[in-house]
This record gives sequence, C-alpha cells and structure tokens, in this order.
Amino acid sequence: MNVTAISPLAPKGGFPDLPVIDGVAFATVEAGVRYSGRSDVMLAQLCAGTSIAGVFTKSATRAAPVLDCQAKLGAANDGGAAIIVNSGNANAFTGKGGIEAVDAVTKAVAKVLDLPQNRVFSSSTGVIGEPLAFERITAKLLELQGSLSPTRIKDAAAAIMTTDTFSKGAAAQVETGDGVVNIAGIAKGSGMIAPDMATMLVYIFTDAKIEQALLQDMLATLTDKTFNCITVDSDTSTSDTLLLAATGKSGIEITAPTGAFCDALHGVMRDLAHQVVKDGEGATKFVEVQVTGADTDADAHKIGMSIANSPLVKTAVAGEDPNWGRVVMAVGKSGAKADRDLLSIRFGDVVVADKGWVSPDYDEARAAKHMKGDELLIAVDLGIGAGAATVWTCDLTHGYIEINADYRS
Amino acid sequence: MNVTAISPLAPKGGFPDLPVIDGVAFATVEAGVRYSGRSDVMLAQLCAGTSIAGVFTKSATRAAPVLDCQAKLGAANDGGAAIIVNSGNANAFTGKGGIEAVDAVTKAVAKVLDLPQNRVFSSSTGVIGEPLAFERITAKLLELQGSLSPTRIKDAAAAIMTTDTFSKGAAAQVETGDGVVNIAGIAKGSGMIAPDMATMLVYIFTDAKIEQALLQDMLATLTDKTFNCITVDSDTSTSDTLLLAATGKSGIEITAPTGAFCDALHGVMRDLAHQVVKDGEGATKFVEVQVTGADTDADAHKIGMSIANSPLVKTAVAGEDPNWGRVVMAVGKSGAKADRDLLSIRFGDVVVADKGWVSPDYDEARAAKHMKGDELLIAVDLGIGAGAATVWTCDLTHGYIEINADYRS
Repeated sequence: MNVTAISPLAPKGGFPDLPVIDGVAFATVEAGVRYSGRSDVMLAQLCAGTSIAGVFTKSATRAAPVLDCQAKLGAANDGGAAIIVNSGNANAFTGKGGIEAVDAVTKAVAKVLDLPQNRVFSSSTGVIGEPLAFERITAKLLELQGSLSPTRIKDAAAAIMTTDTFSKGAAAQVETGDGVVNIAGIAKGSGMIAPDMATMLVYIFTDAKIEQALLQDMLATLTDKTFNCITVDSDTSTSDTLLLAATGKSGIEITAPTGAFCDALHGVMRDLAHQVVKDGEGATKFVEVQVTGADTDADAHKIGMSIANSPLVKTAVAGEDPNWGRVVMAVGKSGAKADRDLLSIRFGDVVVADKGWVSPDYDEARAAKHMKGDELLIAVDLGIGAGAATVWTCDLTHGYIEINADYRS
Repeated sequence: MNVTAISPLAPKGGFPDLPVIDGVAFATVEAGVRYSGRSDVMLAQLCAGTSIAGVFTKSATRAAPVLDCQAKLGAANDGGAAIIVNSGNANAFTGKGGIEAVDAVTKAVAKVLDLPQNRVFSSSTGVIGEPLAFERITAKLLELQGSLSPTRIKDAAAAIMTTDTFSKGAAAQVETGDGVVNIAGIAKGSGMIAPDMATMLVYIFTDAKIEQALLQDMLATLTDKTFNCITVDSDTSTSDTLLLAATGKSGIEITAPTGAFCDALHGVMRDLAHQVVKDGEGATKFVEVQVTGADTDADAHKIGMSIANSPLVKTAVAGEDPNWGRVVMAVGKSGAKADRDLLSIRFGDVVVADKGWVSPDYDEARAAKHMKGDELLIAVDLGIGAGAATVWTCDLTHGYIEINADYRS
C-alpha cells in the first residue's frame, strides 16, 4: 500500500469552494520546520473585534501550544488576533523548551502584526519529543505578512496537513433574517506522522458577530455532537485543537445558542468531523453508529463509542461481515446499562437481532450486501429508555497496520 | 498467513506435565457440537467436599452459562460437583432457549453423576447467536462418565480450545509445612472463532482444603493481579469464566489468604494469563507494561491498560519501533493523574524519557535492539506517588486483521 494514496472515502469533488470570510486573511509559507518542498506554516490574521472560542484535547500530557491557547481564551476582544500553525513538529513533550518556543513564536507574530501577544494563538502538529525549530517559523513572518489574503483559505488547509491524504474544508451560508452570514472551516485529521499519533486541528471562521461567552458555549455544545463523536482508533492526541473565530464583519449579531446560525455551524462541524474519519488511517469504510433506547444520552454515547472503538467490530466492517455478535459484545463491555433480552440491532435497514435474539426475518444476504457499501449504518436499540447518540468511525484494516507499524520513523 | 499456525510465543516445551489432583477426574469426547474430528466437550468430576470459587466476565450481555454459574456459586459443598464445558458454540445471545439449554445440560450431568444440579457448572465457547445443540452433549454423557480419569487434564485443555493455537496448562507444588499440596490449571484464550469474539475460560484445581468464602476471596484478589491485567484487543467476551476448585483431598487445610499456597496459586494464574496473551490473535511480541509512581494503584492500572490497549502503541511494538511518543499519548488519554514534566519512560533497561523530556543518555539503537526481542518491557514512572501496577499485552499485527477481517464466517 502506498501510504500517500488518497483515501477512497475522500469527497469526490475535491476541496470545496469556501466563501471569503470578511475580516480574515490567510498566508502560508515553506518554512522547512521538518518537511521540504511543501508549505508547512499557515497564518490567519483576524480583524479587530474578533471573538475566539476554543476546545482542546483532554489529554493530561497536553502539548505546550494547547496549554498556551487555553490560557489565552477569553482575552479582551477589542484588538485583532492571529492564529499561527505549523506542521512537521508538534512541540509536545518538549519540556521547558516547548513553552519557550510557543512564547517566541506568538511574541514574534504579535510584533509583526501589531497585536497583543495574548491574542496570538498557535498550534503545532507533527513529531513529538523533538525541539521545535521555532526560528525557522519566526524567520518567515514578514514574508507571511506580505502575502496575507482573504482568498487563501485553501492553501491554509494544505499547510496544516501532516500525512492526511486530502485537505479538508467545509462552509455554510446562513440567512438570518437580518441578512446573510458566512461560515468556513478547515481541518486536518487522522493522518499519521511518524513517529507520532494523529492530531486533529480545526479552524472555523465566521463573519457573524458573537460575544465570546456565547461563542464558547455554542462551540462546546456542538463539539459534543460532532468532534467528540468521532473515533479512528480510540487514541487521543496531545495536541487536538479546535478554534472558532467570529469577526463580526457582516454586522449581523447572533445572540442565541440556537437557530439557523447554530444549525449551520453544526453542519460545518459535522462535515469536517466526518472528513477526519474518512481520512482515518487505512480507512475503507465510513460507519455511522446510531444508538437509541438507552437509559440516558450519556449511556448511548458510551455504547456508541464502545462499538466504534471495538477492534473486533472494526475488523468485521473491514471484512464486510455483518457480525452482529461483535456488536452485542461491544454493548456488553461498554459499562452502560443494557438488557441482553431487549437489545435490537440493524445493519442499514436490515433487522438482524430483535429483542435479544436473531430476528425471524433476518436476511443475511441483504445484511452482507449493506456491508459492501462505502458508508455503513450500525443501529442499536437498547429498548430501555429514551437516551440516544450517534457516533462515527471507520474500519480497521491492513492499511492501519501498514501506516503505523510498517512505516518506520 | 495460516491462522492455525502455532503462535511464535507458545511455550517452547509444549504442554507441561501437570500433576494429578486427587479428587478430580476428567473425560473428553467428540460430540460434534460444531467441530468435527476433534474433542469438543470436557467433563471434570469433583469429589464430595470440593469448594468452588468463580469469577466471570463483567459484560452486561453475559451468556446463559455464566449467569447460571454465578447463581450456583456458594452452594453447599458437602456433595460432589462437576464442570462441563463445550467448545464450538457459546450459547450466548440465544434468548430463552439458551437458559433451557444450560438447564438441560446441567440437569443431565447431575443425573448421570448423581449430584445436585446446583453443583454442576457449565461453560460454552464458540459462535454466538446460534442455538446450542445441547442434545449432542447430553447424548455423550454416559460415554464421558465411562472414561473419567484423574490423568486426562491434558485432553481437557485440548477439548476447550476454539481457534487457540496451543493448549494451555500450568501447575505448582507447594510445601506448606503440613505437607505438599498440588495446583493444576488449564485455560483457553484469545483464539478467535468466527464469527465471534475470543473467550477466556480457565479451570484451576487443587487438592488443598479451603473453605469456599476464603477460596472466593483468594481468587478475586489474585484475578485482579493476573487475568484482569491482560488484554489482547480491549474487547470483552460475553462468556469469560474462571473456576477454582479445591478438593481437600490432600487433607491439608489453607486458612489464610496469604502465604506459600497463595503465592503458588498466583504463579499458576499469572502463567496461564501470560499464555492467553501469548496466544493473542496475530501476536508476535509479548509486552509487559510496568507502571510505577502513579497517584494510586488504580491509576497505575488505568495507565497500564491505556498503554496496553492503545492501537498506536501496539502497532509500534509490531513495527519494533521504540516510539515513546505514543506511550506519552497513552498516559495522557488514560484519565489518570499525570504530570507531563515528571514522566519517565524505559524500554527494557534503556531510559528514553526522563522527567518529561528525552533523556540526555537516550540511545535509540539500544532501544531499537530491545524492541527486536520476543518479550518486551515498557516501564513508565509517573513521578507523583507510590501507585504501581503491571499489565501484559501483545502487539497488533497484520495477523490480527487477517484473523478478524479476512477470515469470514
């Protein structure tokens, strides 16, 4: 297998046309942090008045840039802001030097763009445990500043890739009643960069005007329904970062945590989350796991993730085997409330098990046919309550082993 | 890959010579439950006065035989007892019919051996979701009874295999001061039987005399240090069963939950647990994960299992890559208390990371050499407390994918 081949699950149309978000400009550069022959640093400049919200990995061994971003959230939003991201080196597990590198980069960006340093957010993704050659980034800041453009978001999506097999973008236009607002986002996902784990980085921009506390609230709520509902291999990066910036340049203010804007933002986040799964290492199938009838939503989520993370379920999907026994096993081990004799399972629209027993109508040939598709549904009803959740995952294939075992640092 | 090839980690000497345990007799038979051309039912008859303890899967979707065993533990021990096990069909997720099958088998054994039914324990392992053809088992009971022999434990170990690549046994002799007692145990492990998950079944016998409550206490304590510290792929069977029977025939009574007997039992259980890991699906490396310096023992166990279950760590091991970044990641995601800047990591005796940073003495060539061995050590010190735990796992290889994805039902 060629580990740089584009995922078979990549969107057929390639990178989407993303709208310009008024108040944001992008630049990218080849800084040679680790890679050569490709851009590896992206800078996003945000206009004065931009609100920024963020969510981050919950890892106890978070990387220095993550800790720095968390500390800066909620800083006064009357000045401008910036986001600087490098690929090739994650600046994780780099001790005191890692903190100094973040300080050096964000200080230099602040100086070049005339911003307070506490409004400069940074992310790093790539190898961990190696010092970040931050001077390669700071040496390029004037060049980056000189090429800032509102139309370069596609380049930004490419610069943050590690071994992602395709660059990821999504957008929405929202008719609010007061006028149109735009949302555009980019992400990097579960491509592996030897010798380290995949990292998810997501940056979403809107020209809506939204107060920071509300923006943070929206982001946290929608993350729980999108990025916190995906899994490739159950492993968690030390660098996962999601930043959402609202420039306010449309002049249209969003004041409620529900409604058309929120729905559109939800859609953009779900789209990006799905693209991350679709670029999962070695993925050949995209799987939606729908759990209903659980005791609580939290139980439903726990069961969904137990199914989505089960190596035996994931290898069954890879083998196109409608192996409902493994789904029962994953429900059982989840720790959530379950009653074997109330459990029902569907693959696509084929009822496999009904109330704890093989359905009398079970048609294995139809179930097997569903498993041959690119996009599969595993639906589980616990039959004990109203708790529900949907999560997404991919299959576990030889490609995953090749990328992570055979591809040596 | 030939999925029936013997694991490269199998004990070099083959199945060990197990001592006869006075008070236990074994028989096996070809009942054709699912397999043909091999024995698939084993019967163990236990003398009057035998105490029986048990631990079981914590799955919420436990199979019918497990629920039946749990209900019978602690029954009066003045009569004899029996254990009957079939391979080929797990009698799991089989609805009401599953309960009836357990009742039919244990009732028939009770009749043939003249025992109370509540002293007949059964296990089943194999496909799930298919009715157990229990009449094929009951039809063979007289034949089984006729061939009961104290020396047939090796045959019993073979009869309970599914797609295990080797049969598993371990034994110990203990000098108690009052005289010698014997312990002998058999197990089946993480061999896969399409289309289902692996199941662990373990039966241990001793001629020591031990009151049931103490026996149960010992078994639970030692299980937490052995079988609850192993993982192949984080998936949990609906049928895992471990029974420990003390016949009392040596006339030597054990009255304390510590001492030479307990140590020897611990050794037998650890040996069998290691053999289960060494027969993990596709395993080519046996990995001991030692965690020290954690806040609590429970945290240390959580961190150890997070490392041992991490697909990224397990593929790094498969690739012989001393990828300590993935170990940091697994510590971080475990949910246990950790401080990145106090963390130290060793591969074998090679210090890789020290206090949150690559060790100045790190010798990657020596670490890489350690990774080439069959049996590896990953040692993590959290540097924050006295909590410690050791767990064992195997690598994640193409063999695992082949067995579980390519090998179709």
